Amino acid sequence: MNAILSPSRPKASEAAISDLVAELSNRFGERVVTSAAVREQHGHTLTWVKNQPPDIVVYARTTEEVSEIVKLCAAKGVPVIPFGTGTSLEGHVNAPDGGVCIDLSLMKRIIAVHEEDLDCVIEAGVTRKELNEHLRDKGLFFPIDPGADASIGGMVSTRASGTNAVRYGTMKDVVLSLTVVLPNGEIVKTASRAKKSSAGYDLTRLMIGSEGTLGVITEITLKLQGIPEAISAGICPFPTVKAACDAVIMTIQSGIPVARIELLDEVQVRAVNLHSKLSLPESPLLLLEFHGTDASVQEQAERFGEIAAEFTDQPFEWATKPEERSRLWQARHDAYWAARGLRPGAQSVATDVCVPISRLAECVDETKKDILESGMIAPIVGHVGDGNFHVQPLVNTDDPAEVAACEAFVDRLVKRAVAMEGTCTGEHGVGQKKMKYLEIEHGEAALDLMRVLKRAIDPHNIMNPGKIVAL
Amino acid sequence: MNAILSPSRPKASEAAISDLVAELSNRFGERVVTSAAVREQHGHTLTWVKNQPPDIVVYARTTEEVSEIVKLCAAKGVPVIPFGTGTSLEGHVNAPDGGVCIDLSLMKRIIAVHEEDLDCVIEAGVTRKELNEHLRDKGLFFPIDPGADASIGGMVSTRASGTNAVRYGTMKDVVLSLTVVLPNGEIVKTASRAKKSSAGYDLTRLMIGSEGTLGVITEITLKLQGIPEAISAGICPFPTVKAACDAVIMTIQSGIPVARIELLDEVQVRAVNLHSKLSLPESPLLLLEFHGTDASVQEQAERFGEIAAEFTDQPFEWATKPEERSRLWQARHDAYWAARGLRPGAQSVATDVCVPISRLAECVDETKKDILESGMIAPIVGHVGDGNFHVQPLVNTDDPAEVAACEAFVDRLVKRAVAMEGTCTGEHGVGQKKMKYLEIEHGEAALDLMRVLKRAIDPHNIMNPGKIVAL
Repeated sequence: MNAILSPSRPKASEAAISDLVAELSNRFGERVVTSAAVREQHGHTLTWVKNQPPDIVVYARTTEEVSEIVKLCAAKGVPVIPFGTGTSLEGHVNAPDGGVCIDLSLMKRIIAVHEEDLDCVIEAGVTRKELNEHLRDKGLFFPIDPGADASIGGMVSTRASGTNAVRYGTMKDVVLSLTVVLPNGEIVKTASRAKKSSAGYDLTRLMIGSEGTLGVITEITLKLQGIPEAISAGICPFPTVKAACDAVIMTIQSGIPVARIELLDEVQVRAVNLHSKLSLPESPLLLLEFHGTDASVQEQAERFGEIAAEFTDQPFEWATKPEERSRLWQARHDAYWAARGLRPGAQSVATDVCVPISRLAECVDETKKDILESGMIAPIVGHVGDGNFHVQPLVNTDDPAEVAACEAFVDRLVKRAVAMEGTCTGEHGVGQKKMKYLEIEHGEAALDLMRVLKRAIDPHNIMNPGKIVAL
Repeated sequence: MNAILSPSRPKASEAAISDLVAELSNRFGERVVTSAAVREQHGHTLTWVKNQPPDIVVYARTTEEVSEIVKLCAAKGVPVIPFGTGTSLEGHVNAPDGGVCIDLSLMKRIIAVHEEDLDCVIEAGVTRKELNEHLRDKGLFFPIDPGADASIGGMVSTRASGTNAVRYGTMKDVVLSLTVVLPNGEIVKTASRAKKSSAGYDLTRLMIGSEGTLGVITEITLKLQGIPEAISAGICPFPTVKAACDAVIMTIQSGIPVARIELLDEVQVRAVNLHSKLSLPESPLLLLEFHGTDASVQEQAERFGEIAAEFTDQPFEWATKPEERSRLWQARHDAYWAARGLRPGAQSVATDVCVPISRLAECVDETKKDILESGMIAPIVGHVGDGNFHVQPLVNTDDPAEVAACEAFVDRLVKRAVAMEGTCTGEHGVGQKKMKYLEIEHGEAALDLMRVLKRAIDPHNIMNPGKIVAL
């Protein structure tokens, strides 16, 4: 389980590292840290991937500083790992070859908010909650919500999405431009602030989802949304997961512009009730949110209610008060921690398949059967409006048989989704743990093309080595 | 004016070409054409860029055939130029180094329509009108509408958009996956059919907008939309172009989800009236379209009406009947040809800047003054909801002074837009004619990165050489 996935390059020599510590300390003083605790915190991952700490952590304050650090590392052939908040689920910030972790959490400037253009320019260390706090008084919000209060830089790096994506898209849809420090230390601005452009290769989207393997993202120009005039939310219980999925499929096909449509299976609902002291009905649930004018929110909810009635006897219940709504979504966001509470001491395994919506019910249903047969505790939550769902097996990693059984389950899950024209990861990214699935999903020629890109932009393989594609 | 922009590689030898004619003819028979008329038709461009015919035209029928052709060309180092319908405005299909034009217009299969997933899989030669014809009975439509009945492959290649983009996005937003023949003849599928994915580098968007310089796009998986329950359109005259732009800015900022909001200046309106036998009021006009339910269309139109009233005394007039609506949009789509009618015999020059919406009124206003001072005939139309507008100078290309004056005007226009954080091309693409503006817009480091990508994927520079970045 804890085997490091094919380290891609030799570790830097101890001499090179101690030289680098001296040079960096000379330049950045106390912002260079080599204590074991801090290094381990930066090799941390929320799942069962083993901690692999970097040799050095540097807290950068500006794009120019990041460029300086990268140039020093490039000169010595030392790996560079960009770090935001460390909420990655796939070992993205692990340092299998050691190296320098550039912590961007001090880069929190909100450089500009262009209210009239519905966009803003921020540094990569700003988290989504910090940004929304800043925007609230202006009547604007940033809609992408992966649950964790991740840094926007990290969200760009993994092409994150989450609960609102069904309405507002993913990170690929909301980034206008990026400032990126390339592996040679050069600083690139990927695009202008125009809402659209055909001026050459799409460098912006080349960097979105590249997980720090092509450069360090330091500044981001983001599209924003006006806070909707009206927001309403509610829950709807279903007799089976399949019935809930069928209702989702019909809702999406009907073109109802739901802002959120989230599935919790009965196991996850039990976990959430325990963790968040709620009393939700312990059957498969859909949590919904509608955005719009008063009239359109009402219309959307009515149309959803009619569809739901075809698949459940239970009523669609409103959470009209803002406090109730917040409590509901907080509970949804805490689903990951709630699930872990079902088996204290066990490790959580992240999965993230996404299939065309027509195959969703079938995919979830087969997966539920597989979970049952495997005898695992594995709650399901999902951004089902996009066909994306997370099974979260809870595993005793000290028991090799259990670990092997879980690995086999994840394998079956991914292959099931790919066979349905889906993907191994809808939003978490590849990191270390999904690398083995890229060839199954993309085929050899596409994977080769990814390697060509990596080699061309980072010929010495210093940028977050051992992630996405192994060279 | 007609100088070829730095041919990037030596032309293939006559011997290599005649060998290739023999080999291709042997394999593809009458689908290999070398007549001057057909070659010239394939080196054609709608603007003043000089015709540069390829040596050979081959009509391909399948992805595998395209792969075979590319492999033959690669073996001989002969350029490959993909061709859709030839509606490019920037010299994209010109063959400055000769070579083989692969005409994809026979690749018209609609491979699958997944109604339940709101997507379809088509071959690259299908045009947008053909696709919409096919989809109509299913209650679906493909929303991207650049005016011309372009092939979808060509629209992917230039990252096209057009009148509906303000609501439905551009080609970068509606493509789920591509099948691409790489410069070595390998066939790559860029992504699955999942609505979102974080599984590695975004090969799909790397290819969108690459204008045939990284490979030949042969199949496309596209997102579709349900035909709206209600559609309404109308026109609104304004006293000045600035007043119209100010109304657009406020409309977009208010979050009204207009489906189309198009500007025609008074010169363009006169041209349209003459060409399409209409009697539109000859002042700056906004043409609008709203999509939604009956109630929401009504609500949108009312809110727009209130905004417009702040900037004009003229009323917002409905075109309620479908025939009226079609006639209006057909007139809009014919704007290019209508404009040419203002100065018979003159050549049309395409421009395509796009700026953040807050700068739109200022940019259009300064440009109008510039046109006036230049003494040119140069109507303006624009997808102003995105900040994108086209000035279309009509130039006597036999008069060097006029040509030089127009070049200088285009230079000022692009620099004005870039200084306002905009782009030299919102939707037409770079082709040959915008290459010189890429460095002004992107800076040297970003342009270098584009060259790194081109070199890595097409090391022998056989794919549509002399476009986007010169190697």
